[in-house]
Amino acid sequence: MPASSEPAASACGRTHPSVDRDDVLAAARRIAGRVHRTPVLTSRTLDAEFGAKLFFKCENLQRMGAFKIRGATNAVLQLPRHVRAVATHSSGNHGAALALAAREAGLDAFIVVPSDARASKRAAIERYGASVVECEPTLEARAATLEQVVQDTGATFVPPYDHPHIIAGAGTAALELLEEHGPLDQVWVPVGGGGLAAGTALAADTSDVILAEPELARDAKDSLEAGELRPPLPPRTVADGLRTGLGNLNFHILRRRRCRVLLASESSIKHWTNRAAQVMKIVIEPSAATTLAAMADNPGAARGRVGVVLSGGNL
Amino acid sequence: MPASSEPAASACGRTHPSVDRDDVLAAARRIAGRVHRTPVLTSRTLDAEFGAKLFFKCENLQRMGAFKIRGATNAVLQLPRHVRAVATHSSGNHGAALALAAREAGLDAFIVVPSDARASKRAAIERYGASVVECEPTLEARAATLEQVVQDTGATFVPPYDHPHIIAGAGTAALELLEEHGPLDQVWVPVGGGGLAAGTALAADTSDVILAEPELARDAKDSLEAGELRPPLPPRTVADGLRTGLGNLNFHILRRRRCRVLLASESSIKHWTNRAAQVMKIVIEPSAATTLAAMADNPGAARGRVGVVLSGGNL
Repeated sequence: MPASSEPAASACGRTHPSVDRDDVLAAARRIAGRVHRTPVLTSRTLDAEFGAKLFFKCENLQRMGAFKIRGATNAVLQLPRHVRAVATHSSGNHGAALALAAREAGLDAFIVVPSDARASKRAAIERYGASVVECEPTLEARAATLEQVVQDTGATFVPPYDHPHIIAGAGTAALELLEEHGPLDQVWVPVGGGGLAAGTALAADTSDVILAEPELARDAKDSLEAGELRPPLPPRTVADGLRTGLGNLNFHILRRRRCRVLLASESSIKHWTNRAAQVMKIVIEPSAATTLAAMADNPGAARGRVGVVLSGGNL
Repeated sequence: MPASSEPAASACGRTHPSVDRDDVLAAARRIAGRVHRTPVLTSRTLDAEFGAKLFFKCENLQRMGAFKIRGATNAVLQLPRHVRAVATHSSGNHGAALALAAREAGLDAFIVVPSDARASKRAAIERYGASVVECEPTLEARAATLEQVVQDTGATFVPPYDHPHIIAGAGTAALELLEEHGPLDQVWVPVGGGGLAAGTALAADTSDVILAEPELARDAKDSLEAGELRPPLPPRTVADGLRTGLGNLNFHILRRRRCRVLLASESSIKHWTNRAAQVMKIVIEPSAATTLAAMADNPGAARGRVGVVLSGGNL
């Protein structure tokens, strides 16, 4: 279980955190002007290939290259005034997003990063002015280091995905997509920790929300089919943003919405990461390409007017 | 001199072709709904790097991957009703653009392609349903083959860049950019044959229009500085869309507007092709990256609110 599911340590003090569509609407007002309203692209080539009308919400073109800035900004803006610093653990986009959101709010940021994280991710965090605190690449070391940082600095922990403010912020991408191109029969979204998936499920309340997950990280599928949260699988998928286990709050939101999970093979994820560049002329990361890969691996599943949230572009 | 500067053979029968801003406005109305209104991206990272506020008009995200569909569509829609087929010569984007525009208008298209053209460009032309007619890779063979095709098929020649309808169509990209983000102090645009450059100069009539040209293909710079059209240089630049010599009509338009040409080195063009993917998460072709490369190679030249037309993304 990620540290983020312990409400006592989180930015929000509620012990039974809840979040609904109104929170997504409020988040959209709160973060307006601070994040990009990203473009929606279409492709007649891909429409013909999948037999559906596709609308791609390009969060790869978002500030810092991923939807994560939406949730981080929404969370930071709701911190009490006395807070002077934030902290989190991340080997990826959430660290950079929190670093940027904190800098713009005039806060210090401390990001706990495993020693095996990619240099480019670490460089992005430092470019946005945050302090990187290195730890051993284990869940235990991560939690212990974060706790130490919080004690030493007085920083407030902003969790990466399993938190109402993060979920509501993430849901604003689908909200914009629906405002511009709704109604949609389906909205496809990748699922890892589940913040984007849960936020999308709340925002797109009249669409089928379909979760795309790598076969090698199928804990969301297993959890939702079993009706109870299953532990994450070993972090082997190329879609590095989707290696995390599904968060507890996100599990309950996705379960209540009866969201279906469709799986994508590794070869298909790699293929669609490249194909998006060729056909759509955009750079997407494998986690984002998992949507198209799941669509290709499950022929006929995409139907009607279909939204697709391309979550990020940080390779 | 390209065949396209011979009005008698072109889609427009005027012997003294002229084109002005009203033609760009008319083109915008004519092609609306048939081409994408492409998104405009911004990047605080690049703004900080260049010391200017940059607005990127993403014609790489245009249909068939380049601005060329604007001019081709504008030209095809103005053909007399009796025309049943169009023809052109192209080793690149104009061939694919004309193929697509013709298909949508229910016309046949014949594209003369040199035998050394890249397989991917040829495949794009065929994917849009046009007939590819191969020729030897010389200007003479190209002109002779095109003439033969026109004689054999009765097709109307639609030239690639040096024609009022092509220029007016190309100018609609800058027009949209100005509608959404104007006024702009400068608009940067790559220059090869000069259709996009001339169209932009007409559309952006209150901005400085700055032409970005590869050092290895500096005939536009030499021509505008000499006050007379100079022949193209050997086709050596990596920016393959900019190897063509400046067209005669385009030369006169750009000369009248006193457009300045800034040069870009080959290494800089390659660097910025990659950097756009890293920072902006978009795929642009070297011809489009020539704008950023010229900006980097001429420090301080970009000033104020700056539009940049990223011409295409077909690698």
